[in-house]
Amino acid sequence: MIDQNKLPHSFEITACGTAAQTAKAIKDMTVRGAPAIGAAAGFAMAQAISENPKTSAAARATIESTRPTAVDLFYSTKRVFDAAAQATDGAKTAWSEANAIAGESVAACKAIGETGLDEVFGKRKKMRIMTHCNAGWLACVDWGTALAPIYAAKASGLEPFVYCTETRPRGQGARLTAFELSNEGVDHAIIADGAAAWLMKKGEIDAVIVGADRIAANGDTANKIGTFGHAIAAKEHGLPFFVAAPTSTIDPGLENGESIPIEERDENEVHLVRGVDEAGVVRTVRWTNPASHARNPAFDVTPARLITQIITEKGISTPSRIKELVE
Amino acid sequence: MIDQNKLPHSFEITACGTAAQTAKAIKDMTVRGAPAIGAAAGFAMAQAISENPKTSAAARATIESTRPTAVDLFYSTKRVFDAAAQATDGAKTAWSEANAIAGESVAACKAIGETGLDEVFGKRKKMRIMTHCNAGWLACVDWGTALAPIYAAKASGLEPFVYCTETRPRGQGARLTAFELSNEGVDHAIIADGAAAWLMKKGEIDAVIVGADRIAANGDTANKIGTFGHAIAAKEHGLPFFVAAPTSTIDPGLENGESIPIEERDENEVHLVRGVDEAGVVRTVRWTNPASHARNPAFDVTPARLITQIITEKGISTPSRIKELVE
Repeated sequence: MIDQNKLPHSFEITACGTAAQTAKAIKDMTVRGAPAIGAAAGFAMAQAISENPKTSAAARATIESTRPTAVDLFYSTKRVFDAAAQATDGAKTAWSEANAIAGESVAACKAIGETGLDEVFGKRKKMRIMTHCNAGWLACVDWGTALAPIYAAKASGLEPFVYCTETRPRGQGARLTAFELSNEGVDHAIIADGAAAWLMKKGEIDAVIVGADRIAANGDTANKIGTFGHAIAAKEHGLPFFVAAPTSTIDPGLENGESIPIEERDENEVHLVRGVDEAGVVRTVRWTNPASHARNPAFDVTPARLITQIITEKGISTPSRIKELVE
Repeated sequence: MIDQNKLPHSFEITACGTAAQTAKAIKDMTVRGAPAIGAAAGFAMAQAISENPKTSAAARATIESTRPTAVDLFYSTKRVFDAAAQATDGAKTAWSEANAIAGESVAACKAIGETGLDEVFGKRKKMRIMTHCNAGWLACVDWGTALAPIYAAKASGLEPFVYCTETRPRGQGARLTAFELSNEGVDHAIIADGAAAWLMKKGEIDAVIVGADRIAANGDTANKIGTFGHAIAAKEHGLPFFVAAPTSTIDPGLENGESIPIEERDENEVHLVRGVDEAGVVRTVRWTNPASHARNPAFDVTPARLITQIITEKGISTPSRIKELVE
């Protein structure tokens, strides 16, 4: 997998030879983004079953303890575990199932791109779209979710312009979305998270698209911290606010967003910033006041009423009808 | 003056021996915060008049070109310039007027603290207050504006807890407010700007207090970028949103916030982060994608309807009646 902690300062491929290594890569965010976590978790489960079928239940618990919020993780471990348990050749079946999950993810993201292209862009050649965090191909197996319609637009000759919110504290917008868009030749500008509402007010943003880590049955959506505030600001300015996600992100067992577990991560993610110095050396510096502590909730929940449409591989839905797509 | 660009990693006092040096210190944010800019601009004007009375009009234009948004700057240059022009001993009068401005600023901030203590805290012993950017004693000659009621509360035995939003891109919250609060022994936590709305939703914030760079006659308030989004989120959650500022920040000549000039600063403020590495060396790193550009509006305007009360040295006012305080 691509080591996303090192981007954009260096591009490194990391091999995870054991289930434990893959689980660690999920936990420390070497791999991140709900669909990519889902695919990695499926492979981690297959690795664990290959390593020792007798301890695979314990291994599943370990894998599932890495990140609590993205439901794709639990979807994948369950699917691989259950498939192997019902098969005569458990390990072979597990690998096959993990590969199927990854393949389905690619197909779902491609479909989200095509559907989202029609819904978001309509027939408009130029759209200025804001996205938060990274929900592009780095966050998925390929294509992306929130960025898939933008890539589809670019490929079909439209001229999207993307505002990437930095997405403090981890900088997935400043580091990863900006990196992807540069690679794909999509015009864009990084903005501080705090600049989003003002650019909306000034008429410089036409629509917002974000990914999702978990969607409850009523359409409430957990996503990277900051999403909720941007959704409130979009509503205030009458801008459409789209969520793009595969249906594996929908958790029909959760009535609403109140019970989605929200991960609180290490405060050092706020204090420490990694970058390149003038000599080209990658360094980590502490930028905050040394004697101070930080709070670091990693996700928030955007209530369904702030979401215009949810774009999935099975089509478009208002949040209130999202459950129908998985029934 | 304290070099605020170097805080909290080192505490250095910089002497500005000429008007040009003082103007440069305002422009490059060695000194920042509307009241501190106002005081520095008054002294810069006095320096210019001492250096050469004949070129003082040109010098005034130079000083006034440093930062466009904070009205305190223009208030001070005008006041010192006009006083000197009407006096027989121009230089002596200019210095006296500049000193008077600085002294009045201290008194105004102290009064804001006392008034704000009653208004914000009421009789509550524990309040969890969010503030954005830095409007403490670093931003003023002493005491601060938004932080003055918090310091007054601490001094009178109450137990304030402060959430300091990082305030990207320059980190005035993460660097300066956190530094001040540590020094004053006030409990606090730094949060990413994007975490504010979520903590409001979770019931962890009781009120918001911010400073101001310019207040229009109708109460619309320019302040650090990000303020507007926090005000929208506070309204959404029914939280009081206070602006604390001396009446010198009110610009009765501006009908509303539409015509407040908003400074757009260098994009490198988004790309570059200054901090301390593991060896204790202060370094500047680029944390964003190397090939990407950034937008960097430095201020935004919060409409009067989102502001609960404005706290000044002359008392409390609703935004709609703020003009009466300077008539």
